[in-house]
Parts: sequence; structure tokens; C-alpha cells
Amino acid sequence: MCLLCVQAQVLYDFTAEPGNNELTVKEGETITITNQVSKWCDVCLFLVLLYPQKADSALLQASNGNDPWSVWNADATGNAADSWAAKPEGTETAKAASNWNSSAQGHFQAYQGPGKTWDRRMWKDHYRYPYRLSSFYELLLQFPGFSKSGPELYLLAKLPPKGKDKIPMGEVGPVWLYPETQLDCVVADPKKGSKMYGLKSYIEYQITPSTTNRPVNHRYKHFDWLYERLLEKYGSAVPIPSLPDKQVTGRFEEEFIKMRMERLQGWMTRMCRHPIISNSEVFQLFLTYKDEKDWKMGKRKAEKDETVGVMIFSTIEPEAPDLDPIEVEQKCEQFSRFTRAMDDGVKDLLTVGQEHWKRCTGPLPKEYQRIGKAFQNLSSVFTSSGYQGEATLTDALTAAGKTYEEIATMVAEQPRKDLHFLMETNNEYKGLLGCFPDTIGVHKAAIEKYKEGDKLVAAGKITPQEKTTMAKRVSTMSYALQAEMNHFHSNRIYDYNRVMQLYLEQQVAFYETIAEKLKQAHARFTTM
Amino acid sequence: MCLLCVQAQVLYDFTAEPGNNELTVKEGETITITNQVSKWCDVCLFLVLLYPQKADSALLQASNGNDPWSVWNADATGNAADSWAAKPEGTETAKAASNWNSSAQGHFQAYQGPGKTWDRRMWKDHYRYPYRLSSFYELLLQFPGFSKSGPELYLLAKLPPKGKDKIPMGEVGPVWLYPETQLDCVVADPKKGSKMYGLKSYIEYQITPSTTNRPVNHRYKHFDWLYERLLEKYGSAVPIPSLPDKQVTGRFEEEFIKMRMERLQGWMTRMCRHPIISNSEVFQLFLTYKDEKDWKMGKRKAEKDETVGVMIFSTIEPEAPDLDPIEVEQKCEQFSRFTRAMDDGVKDLLTVGQEHWKRCTGPLPKEYQRIGKAFQNLSSVFTSSGYQGEATLTDALTAAGKTYEEIATMVAEQPRKDLHFLMETNNEYKGLLGCFPDTIGVHKAAIEKYKEGDKLVAAGKITPQEKTTMAKRVSTMSYALQAEMNHFHSNRIYDYNRVMQLYLEQQVAFYETIAEKLKQAHARFTTM
Repeated sequence: MCLLCVQAQVLYDFTAEPGNNELTVKEGETITITNQVSKWCDVCLFLVLLYPQKADSALLQASNGNDPWSVWNADATGNAADSWAAKPEGTETAKAASNWNSSAQGHFQAYQGPGKTWDRRMWKDHYRYPYRLSSFYELLLQFPGFSKSGPELYLLAKLPPKGKDKIPMGEVGPVWLYPETQLDCVVADPKKGSKMYGLKSYIEYQITPSTTNRPVNHRYKHFDWLYERLLEKYGSAVPIPSLPDKQVTGRFEEEFIKMRMERLQGWMTRMCRHPIISNSEVFQLFLTYKDEKDWKMGKRKAEKDETVGVMIFSTIEPEAPDLDPIEVEQKCEQFSRFTRAMDDGVKDLLTVGQEHWKRCTGPLPKEYQRIGKAFQNLSSVFTSSGYQGEATLTDALTAAGKTYEEIATMVAEQPRKDLHFLMETNNEYKGLLGCFPDTIGVHKAAIEKYKEGDKLVAAGKITPQEKTTMAKRVSTMSYALQAEMNHFHSNRIYDYNRVMQLYLEQQVAFYETIAEKLKQAHARFTTM
Repeated sequence: MCLLCVQAQVLYDFTAEPGNNELTVKEGETITITNQVSKWCDVCLFLVLLYPQKADSALLQASNGNDPWSVWNADATGNAADSWAAKPEGTETAKAASNWNSSAQGHFQAYQGPGKTWDRRMWKDHYRYPYRLSSFYELLLQFPGFSKSGPELYLLAKLPPKGKDKIPMGEVGPVWLYPETQLDCVVADPKKGSKMYGLKSYIEYQITPSTTNRPVNHRYKHFDWLYERLLEKYGSAVPIPSLPDKQVTGRFEEEFIKMRMERLQGWMTRMCRHPIISNSEVFQLFLTYKDEKDWKMGKRKAEKDETVGVMIFSTIEPEAPDLDPIEVEQKCEQFSRFTRAMDDGVKDLLTVGQEHWKRCTGPLPKEYQRIGKAFQNLSSVFTSSGYQGEATLTDALTAAGKTYEEIATMVAEQPRKDLHFLMETNNEYKGLLGCFPDTIGVHKAAIEKYKEGDKLVAAGKITPQEKTTMAKRVSTMSYALQAEMNHFHSNRIYDYNRVMQLYLEQQVAFYETIAEKLKQAHARFTTM
């Protein structure tokens, strides 16, 4: 019996397509289908697929160590980046990922001080949406009973004519169409608000888009809502990085709010930079809603949007010749290899950075401080000698000692000035890269389905015409993937150039300041 | 029964002074005196006092955990510096000293690599002369039966008229007379020599004094012989620092020989700088002997020198009014406090230096190396992207990675360029300061004895005239101690100025080089 459908209740109408072995259901109906040997029945999976947020409580009950969900349970303390671990070929990566988890906590602590470690409640928050829409496609393909779902939803669908929802493409090669002026926004001015006569308090951030220059207010949960909408609608084509972690304890501490704001800014900047996302109705609503009513109506509309999941590809129609499926597969493989290698590289850098951060804020400054104290100590002993004329030496020794104490402070403060940004950028990329296995998974599933084309035609399951349509649509998907990869690469090159410049600039300033301080300390000693 | 005199044989003639309760003995006689309740009989102590090196085997048998010698046994793994531990008020210092011992080994290892730790054989070498002549005086004073020995040897002795052996004093205040040209010497060119058809091999160093500019050769054991002579003759007035440690294993390894040479150079330079030592017959013999015969004859003469121990003060006659004994005592106390405080300060700096050395040669460069590798790793991942036009970024990332690897090497090599000299200087001072408790002990004992003067006169043990002589001689001793302290202070000021200059100069160069390298790495990134 399916793990879910014991209590499965149809939450939304669904009209089956004839010949697809689907079931037309109506909201409110309770369905129990027990004719499958697989753990998941089609209907449940389909419902989960379309409305993941509704399946929450059912999943919490159903999940256990032996079912496919356990993959997510296992990495629930990490984040989306660790979905590599779900891949069978990812054993080593999975290990590396779990290593990262522990060190990530270290960085987290280093950043935010003690008392703010990842706790069970955060785990639960995270668990609420541990899956990505597209990952379901991969899962679905493992169950023969569901072979007509997944990317087939798009590959074989009868598509409506494209309307205003159409995603525009660039004119040369597989690139998105970029707007002339890039959208930007500033997240600032976090303010504490309260509801229910002060019983419930929250932080509201002010977001000012460069287009209107008119600020709007949003709470973290609004960002989360936006994230869910973007993930649902664009997740198959565009990797939507997770929001900065939810945090339950110490939510109102200044340091935490500052950090969250900084990370929300990073997330928003990345979304603004994406031509598809920044141009989308839901994103524009988030940035430019006029009043509460406008926001509420927009929300309702977005939540009812049916062009979600793989159907997003139906809004793309590249003005380019169809791609050779073999080439498509190779490109897909290449992207997969690259994002995975980069994921490893980024995690490696993060691990090293964690350790360096710890050393720079822990034992190293303590040591410089002790050197400084030892010099000053010697200086005060010398002062007690009763010998005339050693004031120059003792003053110089004291100054040298103080210089090393200053260096201690500089060393301890430096990571916030340089390593911080290197870590933040890599953390962001870790999150982003963590979305790729899902995004790429949709494409791989589509290619696999296309490869079955001849067999399906021979078995009379699809018509030769439908096979041709599939080829065209796989090509469209690949075109979108390439556009997205090109977007990713150009952003990556910019981001890494920028963050390395910033890092090295600060490092140079750090070492130059130390050299200058020591030069001054040196000048006070004399052997004349 | 005395621990020693069971087999005590008189090795040198001694003529007792009448009324001093002394015994005239002749070489070869065997004496057993058992009328003392103390553990040490007068004659044994006196013999030990005059000819410590002869008492060696007897002491080895006699020493056990409960007798006064145990103090030296306990710190035999350290060195002379730890003789502070012998003081009853030195409990804390003793602890600090023993802490230092363990960390000193660390530094030792850090310097000379593994396999060269202090072993039992070195301990034994050290044990051979664990005592300082002057320490005996302190010991002696604890035994009523020996009240006429110790500094009294000089305080009440009938002194011969001063001959050419007289130690000259400076003309203004309590200072030694410094030569117009300071003696200097270069220890260089260590060569392996062998004896007995190659069965026995040794290292011979070439020592070239600035006066003759003619090199002489000496083995370590000759330095050791010189040290023993200087200690015996001048130890009560001038702290003679120990030679660099003896080492049994790996004696011929290049690194060790270089290190020993450097330390012998340091020791010789310090001896050359001391006006009394550098002008002494035995030191001049060591530096300027003409041939083997000249050396052998000089050696024999030096070994027969009888103006040793406290008698060295008989060669000093300051042209200054006698000092007030109260003032003498205060000065002595001040020197004692100062040298002790400085000893603590120096040890503190050494401990901190040890740890810093370890970090700089251990975890820190490893970390920079890992940062460098992580950058290079990311660079090679980026190269695999297949995306056009990111060569600038990947080249820059590789260069940045290599820069951090270079920094790793620099960090690991830096301690040899700066911390090394700071450590060596402080190690030297640690050794030197370790001699002060003994030197100062002689003076304290003399003052105590002088304070008993009235009682001794009343008891008819000494004449009023002898009491006046005692006062004059205590004053002479104090004058010598002040001259020595002035010598110590001026050298200390010079040495610490010089070593701090060197240290900071190298530190500045180190940080400037890093800043320059990073600046070059920075210039390769571009966000244009």
C-alpha cells in the first residue's frame, strides 16, 4: 500500500488526459489506490508533485529510514547543496558533503557567536520543503506505474498557444534575453514590527527596487513565499538558490538580523540579475506591489499559476534549429560534471576557509597577544633595574609589545573584512550548485524518455508525430539549459573576479598595515 | 658520618690557619672525620669547594633524593638557570622553570629536528658539574661546623700583596676597567678530525681573535675546559654562562655542527666582551697559544692556579670609599630581585616564542598551502567549464593559489630569519641569569658573616681588626658585584636593542614581501 494514500484527500481538481492512465479527481475526494506494488501510488506522487507544500504532514508521518525519502532525511541538517548525496554515484561526494555539514556549523558559529547553532527546530523548518520539484521526476521514473508523468507532462502535452507568459530568448546562441537595464534592489532598514498587541513580533525589511525607487516592506516569510513560487514555477529550468537559513533562536539579535539582511540582499541581487526571474510577474509583484490589497490579490494569482514545474518549458520557443539529441545528452553530461566538480571545489574552499577563520579568530591572535605581553613584561622588568639610561629601550619594548597586541586585534578582525565575503560568495554558490542536480535531472529524464521513443511508437503508446514533438521539446529544454548555463558561467566569472579582488585587496591592506606598524616599532630601538 | 669522607683522600696540600679550627692536610693522606652531626664534614666540603671536579665520582655515589644535592639532581635535565629552584622562596619560579624545561625541549626539537632530544647521557654530562662553586658557600653556612669556611676564606684571609694578577677597576663608580679596543673573535670553519687511526673522530673549530688575527683550533672539550677554568676562577664575581649543551647523538650532523658553532660564537663573543675574562691569562691562552707545547704548559699552569673561588676578590682593590654594609645589602637584594624577575620574563618570552615557532612551522603554513591548493583547484575546475573567455580568471586564480603556497613557505621559513635570534639571545640570557643566584649567594653569605662580626668579636673568635677587615672586604665584594651588574645592564641594553631591531626588521620585510606578492596576485583579476 502506498505510504501516503491511506489518508490521501484530493486537494485540487485534476482532469486526466485520455490514454494516460490517469485519474480525474475532484477536490475533497478521498482516494485509496492499492493496486501498486511500489511504495508510492501515482495519484499521491502526482499530488505531491504539484502541491508539495500540502503533503507536508502526510510526509512527516510516512517517512522512515527505509523509504526513498530517507535520502532527504539524512541530509536534512545540511541544505539543498547536499542533494548530490541522493545520486547513487555520489558516495564520495556524499561523504564530503557530510564533512561539510559539520564544518559549516563551525563557520556558522564563527560568524554568529555561540548559542546559535543549528537546532531541531531549524531542521524541521528545513524539512518542510526538503525536496525540489524536479527531483520528483527522477524518482517517478523509477516507478513503472508512473511512466507517463515526469518530463512527459511537457514532452507529450498538448500545449496551448503561447501567450504573454512567453519567455524571450536572446538572438545569438542559447542565451536568455537580457534587459537593457539590469534590475537591482536594496534590502535595508530592518525594523521590528508586532502583531496581536505585541504578542507576536517580527522583523520587516525595506526593499527598494532600482526601477521604481519606491520601498516596499517584507518579512522573511514573504521572501520564503516568493522562493516557493519561484521554485515551483521556474525550478526545472532555473536553479533557485535557497534563502538564507531560517533561525528560530535569537531571531532579533542585531548581529543575526544584519547577517540575514546581508544574505537576503545577496539572494535578491542574484534574482534581480536573472532575466527570467527578474522579469517574472511574481517577482515584480514582490518588488512593486502598491498596497496590501494589491499584494494579497497578486499572491492569490501566483498561487493559482498552473504553468509550473516542467511546464515552464512550454513557454520557451527558441528561434533555432533543433539540436541533435546526442549532442544534447553530451552537453547535459558536461554541465552535470562541471557543476558537480565546482560543488566539490567550492566545498573544499569553504572547509579551508572555516579552518582559517577559526585560527584567525582563535589561537593566532591569542599568540600575538602573548608575544605582545611578553615584550611589555620584559620592558617593565627592565624598568625595575635601577640602571640609568634605559628608558629608550623600555619605551621601545613597550611600544613593540603594544604593536603585537594591535596585530592580535587586527588578525582577529581581518576575517570579517575579507574571508567573510569569500565565504559568503562560496556559500551562495554552494547553494546554487546544490540546485543543479535537480535541474539537470529533469533534462536527463527527458532525454531518457526521448530515447524510449521508438519503443513507445512500436508499442503503440505514442504516435510517430508525438515522437517528433518530443524531440523538438527535448531540444527546447536543452536550449534553455544551455542558456541557463551561460547565465551561470558569466555570473560566476564576474562574481569570482569580484570577490577575489576584494579578498586580495583587503589582504594587501592587512599586511601593509602590519608592516607599517612594525616599521614604526622598529624605529624606536637603537644601538647607537 | 659524612657522606663523602668514607673514602676521602687529600688531593692537594692545605695549610690550616691557626685559630680557624682548620686542619693542615697533605696530598695523599686519607682522612675520616666523624665528629660532625651534619651530613658533610668540613674537610670534604672544603675539598669539594676547591676542587669540585675531583669530587665527581664520590658525589655520584653519595647523592640521593634526601640530601641537599637533590636540588641539583632534580633540575639536572634543565640547566644552570634553574638553580633558582634551589631557593626556598622560589617555589613558583621552580614550577615555571620546570615548565620551561619541557618547552625548551620543544624549541630544541624545532631547531634541530627530531631524534635530538635531551637524553640520559646528556643529563650525565650535565650532572658532572651541576654545582657552582659559590653555591657551596650557601650550603656551608647551613652547617655550624663549617662556619669558618665560605666567604670567610677571603673575608678573614691574610692576603698576599697584589701582584700582576690584580683586576683593574674603572675610574668612575663601580665599573670594570674596559680596554680601549674590545677583543673579538670569530668561530668558524668546523672540520672533522680523527685520532687513533680514525677510530675516534671529533669536530675542530677555528677561532680567530681580532688581536692576532691568527686562527687557533679547538675542540668542544677545550671550550669545556676553558669554561671550567673560568667558572672556578671567576665564578664568584662574574657569572660564567654554560656552554651550549653537550650532545651525544648525531654529533656530526651538519645542522647540529652549525648550530653549536653559532652558539660557541655567542659564548665566545660574550666572554670577549667581558673585560675581566677577556684579559685573563687562561682566556688569552685559549685564543693565542702558539703551539701544542705552549697550550699544554698553559693548561697545566691554569689548573694549578690557586686564586680561585672567593679568593678572586683578593685581586680587586677599588679606589673608592668603603660602602655602608646596609646599602650593600640593599643593592644585593635589588640585584637579586631584578635578575630573578628578568629570568621569569625571559623564560616567559621563550615559552611564547616556542609556541609561535611551532605554529609558524606547523599548522599555519599547512593552512596557507591548503588555501593555495583550494584556489588552484577551483581554477582547474573553471578551466573545465567549456565556457569561452575565462582564461583571465583561471590564470589569476592559479596565480593567487601559487602566491598562497609561496606565503606558506615564507611563513615556515621566517622563524629562522627572526624568531631564531630572539630565541638565541633570550636563551643566552636565560643561561647567564641562571648563574646569578650563585654569584649573588656568595655576596649574601659574606654580608651575613659580616653581620655576625660583633658576636664573633665578643666571643673572641675574631679580633676587632679582623672585623674591620671584613667590612672592607665585603665592601670590595659589593663594589665588584656592582661593577658586574653595570656590565650586565649595559650589555643587556645593547643586546636587546640589537635583537629587537633585527627581529622587527625581518618581520617588516616578511610582511612587506607578502603584501607585495598579494598585490601582484590582485592585479590579475578584473571585473571590467
